[in-house]
Amino acid sequence: MQENLITPTPSAYTFPLLIKQLLLNALSIHGDQQITYRGERRYSFRQFRERIGQLASVLDGLDVRHGTTVAVMDWDSHRYLESYFAIPMMGATLFTVNVRLSAQQILYTLNDSKAEVVLVHADFVPMLEEIQADLKSLRHVIVIADGEAVPANTLPVDGEYEALMVQASAEFDFPDFDERTKAATFYTTGTTGDPKGVAYSHRDIVMHAMSTAMSLCSPREGQRLHREDVYMPITPMFHVLAWGMPYIAIMLGLKTVLPGRYVPERLVGLRESEGVTFSHCVPTILQMLLQAADAQGMDLSGWKLMIGGSAMSPALCEAALEHGMDVFTAYGMSETGPIVSLAQLPPGYRPKDRQEEVRMRCATGRPVPFVDFRIVDGNMNDVPHDGKQQGEIVLRSPFLTKAYVGKPQASEELWAGGYLHTQDIAVRGQDGFVRIVDRIKDVIKTGGEWVSSIEVESLIASVPGVQECAVVGVPDEKWGERPMAFVVQKPDASMGAEGIRHALMAHVESNRISKYAVPAPDRIAFVAEIPKTSVGKINKKLLRERAVQ
Amino acid sequence: MQENLITPTPSAYTFPLLIKQLLLNALSIHGDQQITYRGERRYSFRQFRERIGQLASVLDGLDVRHGTTVAVMDWDSHRYLESYFAIPMMGATLFTVNVRLSAQQILYTLNDSKAEVVLVHADFVPMLEEIQADLKSLRHVIVIADGEAVPANTLPVDGEYEALMVQASAEFDFPDFDERTKAATFYTTGTTGDPKGVAYSHRDIVMHAMSTAMSLCSPREGQRLHREDVYMPITPMFHVLAWGMPYIAIMLGLKTVLPGRYVPERLVGLRESEGVTFSHCVPTILQMLLQAADAQGMDLSGWKLMIGGSAMSPALCEAALEHGMDVFTAYGMSETGPIVSLAQLPPGYRPKDRQEEVRMRCATGRPVPFVDFRIVDGNMNDVPHDGKQQGEIVLRSPFLTKAYVGKPQASEELWAGGYLHTQDIAVRGQDGFVRIVDRIKDVIKTGGEWVSSIEVESLIASVPGVQECAVVGVPDEKWGERPMAFVVQKPDASMGAEGIRHALMAHVESNRISKYAVPAPDRIAFVAEIPKTSVGKINKKLLRERAVQ
Repeated sequence: MQENLITPTPSAYTFPLLIKQLLLNALSIHGDQQITYRGERRYSFRQFRERIGQLASVLDGLDVRHGTTVAVMDWDSHRYLESYFAIPMMGATLFTVNVRLSAQQILYTLNDSKAEVVLVHADFVPMLEEIQADLKSLRHVIVIADGEAVPANTLPVDGEYEALMVQASAEFDFPDFDERTKAATFYTTGTTGDPKGVAYSHRDIVMHAMSTAMSLCSPREGQRLHREDVYMPITPMFHVLAWGMPYIAIMLGLKTVLPGRYVPERLVGLRESEGVTFSHCVPTILQMLLQAADAQGMDLSGWKLMIGGSAMSPALCEAALEHGMDVFTAYGMSETGPIVSLAQLPPGYRPKDRQEEVRMRCATGRPVPFVDFRIVDGNMNDVPHDGKQQGEIVLRSPFLTKAYVGKPQASEELWAGGYLHTQDIAVRGQDGFVRIVDRIKDVIKTGGEWVSSIEVESLIASVPGVQECAVVGVPDEKWGERPMAFVVQKPDASMGAEGIRHALMAHVESNRISKYAVPAPDRIAFVAEIPKTSVGKINKKLLRERAVQ
Repeated sequence: MQENLITPTPSAYTFPLLIKQLLLNALSIHGDQQITYRGERRYSFRQFRERIGQLASVLDGLDVRHGTTVAVMDWDSHRYLESYFAIPMMGATLFTVNVRLSAQQILYTLNDSKAEVVLVHADFVPMLEEIQADLKSLRHVIVIADGEAVPANTLPVDGEYEALMVQASAEFDFPDFDERTKAATFYTTGTTGDPKGVAYSHRDIVMHAMSTAMSLCSPREGQRLHREDVYMPITPMFHVLAWGMPYIAIMLGLKTVLPGRYVPERLVGLRESEGVTFSHCVPTILQMLLQAADAQGMDLSGWKLMIGGSAMSPALCEAALEHGMDVFTAYGMSETGPIVSLAQLPPGYRPKDRQEEVRMRCATGRPVPFVDFRIVDGNMNDVPHDGKQQGEIVLRSPFLTKAYVGKPQASEELWAGGYLHTQDIAVRGQDGFVRIVDRIKDVIKTGGEWVSSIEVESLIASVPGVQECAVVGVPDEKWGERPMAFVVQKPDASMGAEGIRHALMAHVESNRISKYAVPAPDRIAFVAEIPKTSVGKINKKLLRERAVQ
């Protein structure tokens, strides 16, 4: 099958897809565009390119070579943006350290990634000192202290970022290399085991930028990005490359505002003073932004905000719409680049009412171009697009993680059957809109159907007298699994198991859930409280153990 | 430099960039979207996908395999669109035959491309019969006759397109293969020599679609494409894949109108009946559209039209704007994919007056993303972006032709120094806007400067009493070349050589041209007429010979 390839003439340039190519238009058209750090520091794209050269020269002086891992521990800053380009453009690997992990986890990831150089903000120097004795590959440290004196410490510090930059040459010849070269790495944390490293190649990052930009730019109006937007990330730049959005902002030539450490009052202040029109964040941050704006009497209207990380609640979406914000969901995960679907309202669609609009904006949305987005049963067959039948989201696209670093077994499980398994259980409507209903480990597989534990929980929770509940699957010889409910009643309430079942049967009648979703009378347990994990989620693992007993 | 590549886990899908991936979103989101042929035939994207499968089954039955060349000779139709996908998706090569060439040139290209199968519209059957005896590789012919009986002929006809389609299975498993596989080929015609074949790989076509779509979709307003546009090509689908636009329309899920043979009245009629909002054409067609609309009293307002192929004159642009059309220039050539720059008004730009706006819309424009667009002197050094200094446009991008088919020397000349040479001479302003001033073979290299023959011609033509003129370079020992002007005076006019020089010196004073651009008195010849080529262009080759004598 190798015949019929186009053979380039020897002098032809074959143009590998490299991060440096994202700068082509930024410089040829948008050289005067601005980048600002908290409104305090401000420079042009042209100066940005010079600083990328300077940073590369600094790192080159520290023996950073093709394949060297350089770690960054910083808040969202222009320096972080410089490292997004300079480090991979050298052929080195940018490791964005999750500074919210414990010191021991950070130690693990710095050793596992073989980081030789760390750019560290002064705020994180004490943490680095704490684990210093156990760091196996670290050779050099650059402290980010905004040009101030570096605080006293025991690290192998080569100098302060700005002090090193002013001495460095802006001339640096960024080489060409294979587009499959590792550009960046990040560690995901599950509930069990060590963090797992995912890696993004130059090609992954470029294709993600193009695919996401095309999806964001193409709507006629609403939930769209355009060349006159002003961009500010509010998803940490260490987290999956801030969803790849800074690369898109630079590629399209957008004014870019880096807000430093997230302080809600400062974020809404920057939004106003810098004219920010496009951001992205998790629901918790959106809640804080609304509160901060209310407290200061600030207007948020016209602010376009992509929401991801966890599901946006209808109430929060409603509140944001009331504030005039254009909020919509983006779906993805560390392994997926991340963005694989967006809850943009369909072309020509005018919502029937606010409730329907909220429901669409909170959905998982529709695939972006170049994503083969399937919802499959346990045999990898597509489930019907009827908005009811559940399956796992499995994916192919040009920008998915091809393997976990150094974890062959987990990598093969991730890619079982040639599709990336998200472990998210979802339904898809005829309109193409996907809605996630559960995580695969929490879904109940019974009688040949998949039942969403979360949906049954929400229906039980709406029964009068129920304070809280949790639903898990328990093994069953005949049905595979059967649902079991743990229910906390409100004081003085006493609806009994039949009361719960009666309420659920009404939803079976109306076709909302299948009859397999209704727990048997002896599988409804009234308990004093629902056990939680350290981060406040229902501890379903423990409940499954209890259910078996 | 091969270290530090990401190694995919064995089960990972590495996602080659193939034309079939352009259909992913089209089907998962836009399955109900319409394709119509002249408003007479109409089907959905879902049915389009079935017909792609059917066409592949038909061709498979004719032994079309990976690497087989299949030629198409048709007007703009749904069948052409089906062949844009089915043929390359099989791994075969789509050859879009330029039906405007002479029979002998078509014979040359069919043999040179080794076309084994031809899909031919009944209108072109006589032409194919004429050259039949000399066709070396042709094995099969499918006649396109809209389901009617095939006219009597002597060709090896296997059947009529629609008759074969109804018998064929829509099930066809399109395989994966290398993204550098040749997907399509087209022949360019110069003024001398045989037509040269250029080839586009699957990767070229996908990257061109993404890059052009991103540029077209990203403006806040004006000169933009969006998901609610209705698309109709008015550049023949045989010509550089209709500028790649049909692939973009399908990828973005746009309603697509195929107009058949171009009849101006029908085009403006379809525009009205189908609600067309986005098209592209050459200036001559635009002129015809304006006339047809005026004759029928039809409204053209809101029609977005990309103009390419040759320069749009200010007067034509002005007329289109008067009709409410949003016209703007696209620049490129067969060798460049084709689109490498667009004359979209810059973000936030509000024109000073209509004249300035017209000037920008008629310019060559600014590069699209992922195009390294340089203007260089004879030593490959960038000329300043001052809107004055001239140089040749040279390019790199992920979608340029890597070689002429079977022409190693011409291929190396095309890519001399690792950049594709367009042979277009241009200037670039500080705003990034490029304006082509001449073809390289017509530019006059004198005193270390490049003088545009076209610009000097336009200045001489504006001298009172001048009816027509032509300017060429003549060899000069001291200066390399010097300009020579041939001038036709109006009856009774007699400005003399000094009159011409005096007028030009005023433009030297105002810094519009350099003093090297002014011909010496003995290099201004008054003649009875300017010699022209068969297509009505000034015959500069002949004038250069006369100038030497």
